[in-house]
Amino acid sequence: MKICYVYAHPEPKSFNGALKDTALVALKEKGHEVKLSDLYAMKFDPVLKASDFPERKNSEVFNPFFEAIKASKTGAFAPDIREEMEKVKWADLLIFQFPIYFTSMPAIMKGWIDRVLAPGFGFNPVTNSAYDTGLFKEKSSMLVTTTGAPKEMYSEGGVHGDLNKHLEAITHCIFEYMGMKVLPSYIIYEASSISKEKGAEEFEKYKQRLLGLGADVV
Amino acid sequence: MKICYVYAHPEPKSFNGALKDTALVALKEKGHEVKLSDLYAMKFDPVLKASDFPERKNSEVFNPFFEAIKASKTGAFAPDIREEMEKVKWADLLIFQFPIYFTSMPAIMKGWIDRVLAPGFGFNPVTNSAYDTGLFKEKSSMLVTTTGAPKEMYSEGGVHGDLNKHLEAITHCIFEYMGMKVLPSYIIYEASSISKEKGAEEFEKYKQRLLGLGADVV
Repeated sequence: MKICYVYAHPEPKSFNGALKDTALVALKEKGHEVKLSDLYAMKFDPVLKASDFPERKNSEVFNPFFEAIKASKTGAFAPDIREEMEKVKWADLLIFQFPIYFTSMPAIMKGWIDRVLAPGFGFNPVTNSAYDTGLFKEKSSMLVTTTGAPKEMYSEGGVHGDLNKHLEAITHCIFEYMGMKVLPSYIIYEASSISKEKGAEEFEKYKQRLLGLGADVV
Repeated sequence: MKICYVYAHPEPKSFNGALKDTALVALKEKGHEVKLSDLYAMKFDPVLKASDFPERKNSEVFNPFFEAIKASKTGAFAPDIREEMEKVKWADLLIFQFPIYFTSMPAIMKGWIDRVLAPGFGFNPVTNSAYDTGLFKEKSSMLVTTTGAPKEMYSEGGVHGDLNKHLEAITHCIFEYMGMKVLPSYIIYEASSISKEKGAEEFEKYKQRLLGLGADVV
């Protein structure tokens, strides 16, 4: 299987860094091809802006939606966006790994979504290509994330509410919106205060989850 | 009233730009003091990173949570964060205006939240300061946002689900988490395809909403 692994954490020596390394080894062991986007290491710029569109349709007023729809016909996006788009096109499965910052993605990951998964690429409101008719129907996606807070706080009835509900803003409104199949999110709670032993167990469990990928992918 | 107006849109000549200008005029007309953070104009860097903490507690491994908790005791944050924190401390009301990108904030706004509203500043899990005991109990907050998609798509039973539910990730899990009172979100649907006449009506309605601010603020 071809896997694009999009990863965001500012510290290579973190729990997230080790989790990502575990994943890369396991996926290669299983014979999958993997392309990694390590957003911090790449110094990925998360800010959507006019220069994302080198062949502006309207050079007076910048309308990101209309420029993206036009650019998606010709491929005229900035080079860093084009490079990421090529990985997405190539992949059967997209895995996104990040720590939860305020129930959602860190800004650097949100910006990858904002800029790379542009209108006209994975979805197109102009041609009504969304959900059942999304443009990424042949792809699957999976979130892998860690929290500082315990599971109780992130459960139905907990103070923050069910984390899986919050993640629907991504799994439903981004991935399913683009037609992708969504695999169950892989969440590790309280990762920031995890012990070495518990951490090793988590790495092994995650490895087994990845080795088991197959029939559940599109 | 002292108002910090945090605004994110890449194009000053956009509907969002005009909406923000309308707000600044109306709020000053009413006698409020306003400090604007125009994130695109400031070239605000949304990426949380080790250099946000000039006096690192642990210089070997960067743990954003622990560094923020420590820095919040001494104020040792990077200058751009400190500057924004001063505006927040000063303000009675925080208004956040942005276009919806994938049911949430553009990355540049998410990064302002990630970096400025740091652990130890508005909330502190170590001292159980959150929600009823959040550190911003004397402040109010309000979201002002625009969508490309029509209201039907963003309603209960619509394809994306109720936008107000998605926004709870911000209004509840960020603003209320920090103890702030949350004013009803001000949402303008289908702003990207709005006519000039309808736009002028929307500016007037928004102006009236802002002129009416008062009793509902903390």
